Amino acid sequence: MLIVQKYGGTSVGDLKRIEEVAKRVIKTKKECAKLVVVVSAMSGVTNELIDYAHHFSKQPNAKDMDMLLSSGERIASALLSIALNEQGYKALSFSGRKAGILTDSVFTKARIEKIDTRALQEALNNDYIVVVAGFQGVNEKGEVTTLGRGGSDLSAVALAGALRADLCEIYTDVDGVYTTDPRIEPKARKLDRISYEEMLELASLGAKVLQNRSVELAKKLDVKLITRSSFNNNEGTIITKEEGMEQALVSGIAMDKNQARVTLRQIEDKPGIAAEIFSALAARNINVDMIIQNVGVDGATNLGFTVPENDLDLAKETMQNILGAKSLIETDKEVVKVSVVGVGMKSHSGVASAAFQCLANEGINIQMISTSEIKISMIVQEKYGELALRALHKVYKLDEK
Amino acid sequence: MLIVQKYGGTSVGDLKRIEEVAKRVIKTKKECAKLVVVVSAMSGVTNELIDYAHHFSKQPNAKDMDMLLSSGERIASALLSIALNEQGYKALSFSGRKAGILTDSVFTKARIEKIDTRALQEALNNDYIVVVAGFQGVNEKGEVTTLGRGGSDLSAVALAGALRADLCEIYTDVDGVYTTDPRIEPKARKLDRISYEEMLELASLGAKVLQNRSVELAKKLDVKLITRSSFNNNEGTIITKEEGMEQALVSGIAMDKNQARVTLRQIEDKPGIAAEIFSALAARNINVDMIIQNVGVDGATNLGFTVPENDLDLAKETMQNILGAKSLIETDKEVVKVSVVGVGMKSHSGVASAAFQCLANEGINIQMISTSEIKISMIVQEKYGELALRALHKVYKLDEK
Repeated sequence: MLIVQKYGGTSVGDLKRIEEVAKRVIKTKKECAKLVVVVSAMSGVTNELIDYAHHFSKQPNAKDMDMLLSSGERIASALLSIALNEQGYKALSFSGRKAGILTDSVFTKARIEKIDTRALQEALNNDYIVVVAGFQGVNEKGEVTTLGRGGSDLSAVALAGALRADLCEIYTDVDGVYTTDPRIEPKARKLDRISYEEMLELASLGAKVLQNRSVELAKKLDVKLITRSSFNNNEGTIITKEEGMEQALVSGIAMDKNQARVTLRQIEDKPGIAAEIFSALAARNINVDMIIQNVGVDGATNLGFTVPENDLDLAKETMQNILGAKSLIETDKEVVKVSVVGVGMKSHSGVASAAFQCLANEGINIQMISTSEIKISMIVQEKYGELALRALHKVYKLDEK
Repeated sequence: MLIVQKYGGTSVGDLKRIEEVAKRVIKTKKECAKLVVVVSAMSGVTNELIDYAHHFSKQPNAKDMDMLLSSGERIASALLSIALNEQGYKALSFSGRKAGILTDSVFTKARIEKIDTRALQEALNNDYIVVVAGFQGVNEKGEVTTLGRGGSDLSAVALAGALRADLCEIYTDVDGVYTTDPRIEPKARKLDRISYEEMLELASLGAKVLQNRSVELAKKLDVKLITRSSFNNNEGTIITKEEGMEQALVSGIAMDKNQARVTLRQIEDKPGIAAEIFSALAARNINVDMIIQNVGVDGATNLGFTVPENDLDLAKETMQNILGAKSLIETDKEVVKVSVVGVGMKSHSGVASAAFQCLANEGINIQMISTSEIKISMIVQEKYGELALRALHKVYKLDEK
């Protein structure tokens, strides 16, 4: 049995918390032969280092930033290993490099290319608890890189895949994945299991338990994930393959407030116009989410799409450059995306219509709709977002076990 | 022209200080083609990390400690490099590993074995200011090691040697090397030049400007050192070869309070007893400094030696194990070593007797004496230490230029 555990920043937030983590690690070690622990920086440390860097420069050079930021995880991993050794367990801290994590050279947001597990395997075979500094690796020149937001989760999943771990446990400060945000709907229920695909939709839709990159990687490497809290002993949520799972019709309702809507009216209805618009947005690294095009009238058409709120100004400017003064560009930041996610949708009809009927009953106008095999997303006015979420949660009986 | 500069912890003590260092580095870069800057951790950081480790363990394991402690210098080097880049200069931070510093595997007090300068040379040839995290290297397995106290000075000197630098500037918070401790003797005078040999004696005797290992390495590698302050523009003290220097009779008076005396009375006077005693101490890594053996009487002898204060308990225990209950073991922490250092002693007689006479005039009893070619050391009661130092400083006219 080989388990990879990952502890986030709040889980190792101070020395007392690191002691608690050490206890949990030891408890796991007693039950499983081989144990790899990936740690984030103690909470606050990374932000402090970023503040230091920004004292000197608005845009610090990326190589130095990675040298800087990788230190936080190195410190946390060394401290946890020291705590474990003190309790009489053999443990050793590993930097990303020492753990064999090789990445590309995109500093501050590198991608893991492969993992040379020899040093880790040797330590595991010698009964060491391996404590790996998350969030980091090295490129082929041996220069330190970091993996961007959620990087320690990525480290854990990639290591679990490379080591063919039986399980990858992601410890955070929440109990697992919920049917919806419990702060908005107190009746939200923790899910025991969820498929990678549903988790991907929920994560990208604003459920902040796991970053998409980590779930995607887990799916690709067939790593069984559990997300749970390091602050209690509650069972977490298992994230795994869809097959064999009891297929809930709907698993959860997500809301994403970081949405802004752009509507282009009266644009010329000619081949290639959509390509031109979305290529220009892509060239400026703006992630377009939903896209709606209506049938045009009189050689003109309307096109609507959504972008992250903080990209809205850039998106508008980009549109003005392309379309010129003649076109009407409307923007709206006061919108949210509410989404219904569930693998059961694939085989059941009526899920979408139930959602539309539900919002209609509440008097909420749906501005845009997009659907995938396992998801229905709707853009509504921001002020109705929480109401919509609660209504949908009830319609699909998510508060009932 | 290639210069290596090293900035100590107080020189990079906070963000404001790092900005000041950046200015100084830029000023130097304008005057010299190639510049390597070695930095310590920001003052307080290393102690904070040690405190963290000691929260978990009285004796943290050495490998994890090195992973932990090396982070402080990495952070400082990255920040300085970011500051330099912001000012429009090409700079890049290097960890010990990236700088090619290869050490043995004695974690927490590793020795530099060689330096692979290729990465540094490439960066220097491309006009980068190279900012190296001091105090650290890697062993042949690629594991991070640290170099022990004064390690950043060692990094700087070793790099200066390997790169055949024209000069190695050591920046601290003092102006240079003084004839004695100015806090005790306000008339102490800064020396313009001093030989490696004298500096070695002064450093080991408690003048804290430079650690012995660094001076020894500079001597071995023929690296011209300057020690000066990063808080002002005063000329520092040049530390270089003896030849060609004006040979002062006495260059300085040093005092070392970290001394404890052990006296073994009535030990069996047989061949090999001294070897047995000092091998046992060496085996426990206790540095014995002065050793005095008196002629024995009736097959028994007295043996005295000094050790660092914090090793005294261990030394006593070691002696008890070897000698058994029969022998009398006396210890005294209330002693200091006062030393007179100068290359001129080699060719002048009467230096030692002047010292003894001087202390006699002050009514100070000398408990132990040891001499070398360029040094006379005397153990006296701690309460007389400062008085002895001031008296000797005056006798050798060190307050006069």
